[in-house]
Amino acid sequence: MKQSRMLIPTQKQDPTGAEALSHRMLIRGGYIQQVSAGTYAYLPLAYRVLEKIERIIKREMDATGASEMLVPEIIPAQFWQDSGRYDTYGAELFTLKNRHDTEFILGPTHEETFTELVKNSIKSYKKLPLNLYQIQSKFRDEDRPRYGLLRSREFLMLDSYSFSANEDDLDQIYKEMRTAFEAIFNQIGLSYRGIIGDSGSMGGSDSMEFSAPAAVGEDTIVYSNDSEYAANLEMATNMFVPQKSHAEAQPLELVDTPDVKTIDQVTAFFDVHSDQVVKSLLYLADEQPVVVLLRGDQVANEAKLKHVLGVDKFELATADQVKQLLNVQPGAVGPFDLPQGTKVLADEYVQPVVNAVIGANQTGKHYQGFNPTRDLPELEYVDVRTVKEGDISPDGSGELQFTKGIEIGHIFKLGTRYSKVLGADILDENGRQQPIIMGCYGIGVSRLLSAVAEQQADDNGLVWPTAIAPFDVHVIPTNVKKEEQVELATQITGALEDAGLEVLVDDRKERAGVKFADSDLIGIPVRVTIGKKADEGIVEVKIRKTGETVETKVDDLNNTIKILAKEI
Amino acid sequence: MKQSRMLIPTQKQDPTGAEALSHRMLIRGGYIQQVSAGTYAYLPLAYRVLEKIERIIKREMDATGASEMLVPEIIPAQFWQDSGRYDTYGAELFTLKNRHDTEFILGPTHEETFTELVKNSIKSYKKLPLNLYQIQSKFRDEDRPRYGLLRSREFLMLDSYSFSANEDDLDQIYKEMRTAFEAIFNQIGLSYRGIIGDSGSMGGSDSMEFSAPAAVGEDTIVYSNDSEYAANLEMATNMFVPQKSHAEAQPLELVDTPDVKTIDQVTAFFDVHSDQVVKSLLYLADEQPVVVLLRGDQVANEAKLKHVLGVDKFELATADQVKQLLNVQPGAVGPFDLPQGTKVLADEYVQPVVNAVIGANQTGKHYQGFNPTRDLPELEYVDVRTVKEGDISPDGSGELQFTKGIEIGHIFKLGTRYSKVLGADILDENGRQQPIIMGCYGIGVSRLLSAVAEQQADDNGLVWPTAIAPFDVHVIPTNVKKEEQVELATQITGALEDAGLEVLVDDRKERAGVKFADSDLIGIPVRVTIGKKADEGIVEVKIRKTGETVETKVDDLNNTIKILAKEI
Repeated sequence: MKQSRMLIPTQKQDPTGAEALSHRMLIRGGYIQQVSAGTYAYLPLAYRVLEKIERIIKREMDATGASEMLVPEIIPAQFWQDSGRYDTYGAELFTLKNRHDTEFILGPTHEETFTELVKNSIKSYKKLPLNLYQIQSKFRDEDRPRYGLLRSREFLMLDSYSFSANEDDLDQIYKEMRTAFEAIFNQIGLSYRGIIGDSGSMGGSDSMEFSAPAAVGEDTIVYSNDSEYAANLEMATNMFVPQKSHAEAQPLELVDTPDVKTIDQVTAFFDVHSDQVVKSLLYLADEQPVVVLLRGDQVANEAKLKHVLGVDKFELATADQVKQLLNVQPGAVGPFDLPQGTKVLADEYVQPVVNAVIGANQTGKHYQGFNPTRDLPELEYVDVRTVKEGDISPDGSGELQFTKGIEIGHIFKLGTRYSKVLGADILDENGRQQPIIMGCYGIGVSRLLSAVAEQQADDNGLVWPTAIAPFDVHVIPTNVKKEEQVELATQITGALEDAGLEVLVDDRKERAGVKFADSDLIGIPVRVTIGKKADEGIVEVKIRKTGETVETKVDDLNNTIKILAKEI
Repeated sequence: MKQSRMLIPTQKQDPTGAEALSHRMLIRGGYIQQVSAGTYAYLPLAYRVLEKIERIIKREMDATGASEMLVPEIIPAQFWQDSGRYDTYGAELFTLKNRHDTEFILGPTHEETFTELVKNSIKSYKKLPLNLYQIQSKFRDEDRPRYGLLRSREFLMLDSYSFSANEDDLDQIYKEMRTAFEAIFNQIGLSYRGIIGDSGSMGGSDSMEFSAPAAVGEDTIVYSNDSEYAANLEMATNMFVPQKSHAEAQPLELVDTPDVKTIDQVTAFFDVHSDQVVKSLLYLADEQPVVVLLRGDQVANEAKLKHVLGVDKFELATADQVKQLLNVQPGAVGPFDLPQGTKVLADEYVQPVVNAVIGANQTGKHYQGFNPTRDLPELEYVDVRTVKEGDISPDGSGELQFTKGIEIGHIFKLGTRYSKVLGADILDENGRQQPIIMGCYGIGVSRLLSAVAEQQADDNGLVWPTAIAPFDVHVIPTNVKKEEQVELATQITGALEDAGLEVLVDDRKERAGVKFADSDLIGIPVRVTIGKKADEGIVEVKIRKTGETVETKVDDLNNTIKILAKEI
């Protein structure tokens, strides 16, 4: 393909307002152009990358036995009213009316439509399981679109929906989809982590999020540096490794501690480390008081607490609420002499402390010599702490690290969430009516393009993995006024194309420096430069990723590229 | 692919309200399902056909040097306000607002967006010509959607936009696109006609519409049975072949014709054929009176008249207007003694009439012995007649036939229509600012699916041409309880797939009759039936289109299919 015949509007300067590396480089490389806030045109180079990503996705999806199809992007609002999502989805839903005043939404996802289609078509367990997918533009009316394609109002997504008559078939498809998604991300050349979802809060269903580590990620991902373990910070856990103390247990002793409220004040007053203090926090869980004990050097994780208690509403009590409920100052809360019905929970790491300091639940007083097993023998221990970098991974393998991550995919066991409310029933093997059991599986296709760019671009521009690069080789005659260069470019392009490679030829009448800068911005894996040694039949091969260059005879070019490309 | 794992909801009965053959059969074959009035889901079989159509389109488009890309489906309303189309496009435009009250439209076509993108990227003639295309969902808020995919609210379309610095480059691209479109339609296996557009009314620009003859078409297409000639009825013309009469010219004579008004009454009164009568019609063209003369057996073509006169408003005068302007009854209008400033035009076929009857422009009177060259020597002759079936084609080759047609594609020289109003200028070779010269080219992708179905389906279901069939071969073991049939089906499928064919295997536990009926509905070109002779290694091959069947040894199957498939 001749570069002069493609729309590739490269830019020397960073565009204003583009913070993310991927956003800047996709614009500077001539891949995307903004059309309105949060919507982008995919110019020809970006489209070639998208097509390759889509081809990989389709191949892996088809291999699982899923079938591709396509549903309308405008969805009758009635479908979402029936499912209950119309009211809960919020302001991100684009709505519109047709000329006859029927209300529609622009689909951000299509659980309802697929459920309706299957409900109209399938009446018996015999026609299940089915897994149906599509790749299509989706819409979300973001309040503040940003980071280019990462948070946009119109984006490309794979969404797949499975329908089965029993949990076993769902489990089977869910497993196959996990394997397929991993194969897709691996082939695309993306570094990613699979994050086990919060299985409890979703009613026992399994889910997994796939996240690509990147500086602009909106989630904090916790992962082990030595195992597969990964989790969102909210749900991350570390191994419970009780350090045994050989100190002799001291008696529990009430101490006057006027004006001692914070952990820092406590450690200073008693001259102890914070891991020798047990802090007591009063929460309201669905309006009921709960006292939570944590070691002084640790931080409560409210998502875990909510999950452990199985409540919807969970808030730290205000100073007023503390006074009202316990009749003490907030800094003096303790697990003693609590009003009837106050639940007490402790993090696992409280259990092994010896001779700790703890609030006495009396204003201006603390206990020292607190030994939990002796002093609160009924205490319930759970994992409600927030992990820290350097903690031991819960699988015992490696230490926890933090990173920012971009959500690139999600698999989810929906169960009967949609089939029940929309009435999608089948007759089971015993002739009984049962709601269909569903799963859904999604990949952010346009996000993948950005995620790869985010992970692999450098200061000079984009760097594409071979599997999804818009072209395999960038052929650059440095001076198209020299006939021998143009001829050699044509000859080389022909030979490379005959070998099955996709070639972009920079046939423009630009200076060599401009061409090289543009080539770096565009980021094709291999560059072949045809310069002064063209008449000797010698060209230069450069690997974009490593910067490695070698000179080679034209006759050896295909081999040289093959050898170098293996290293990419 | 196993039929049991695909969503193919065939139906025995015609769906209610589906008039068009293609609509009925696409639903009955399990290809499409309505989601809301005028929107359809493309189920897996339909998606496979669409994908093959798209692949053919992309290959031909890429071969012309055009590049594929993708622009957002939601378009800022401002773009269309700037181009002037926001107000003129009418009620078919879907509009919506985002949460910040910015107005958008759902794109029915994207001239403005592409013009804006190129305007932002291209400043010099050196970077042109460019041809950019996309295949994507488009939206039109049809008042009365019908015929399934043929007139729907959301549809798939190829739209391509060319940008050039001069007319020659536009001409070149326009020609290439015409060739590419013809190659696409031919490969898809569609019968179609290329219809030259009304070049005058669009400001001198060329255009061509591609129309697929079909019973449900909304346009009447006129074509020659012996040449390439085709036109919409509005613009169709026939050859002017003056028949010489050897009759002697009679004198012009005023005759009392009380109560004789219509052509039938005139022919009865004078005992002549209608081709011996000249009828006179009074029109108002942009409010000015025009008398139009036609031979009595011919019908005026108002589109041609409007075009010839170069007017925007064109209406037949009412009885009241006739009386007011000419002071006669409507049936008595004639080209004589007209008020000052009344234009008179005659169709070419009036010129050779001899001794005709004509209105005298006096109530209750006609002339006989009218000889135009003698009696109205100044008369202007033009082609303003409506053609009839059997007329001679204007190129002299063959007779005109009428058919209904479905518009499947359009190519159009836009010139500077959009670049001027949107300010998309470039510097030309002389450093002068010039608006970019544009063309646009469209194919209704989902319409093609329906058009092929419309042309080729029969009473038993769909009949797909090999190039776009969802599968190449339908393998049907008639009884899956018989192990030898299932084994043979697996063996045959493997062999066919190894030979590069796509195979659908009906592995369902259905009766043979149900399977055959479904197979006919689905319309895969070749069916292989594995029945009672399975243990002898004999199967039946049936060609869907011709109904031809042969028995063949399994070892000869691939060859048999190859031989038979050539005939399809």
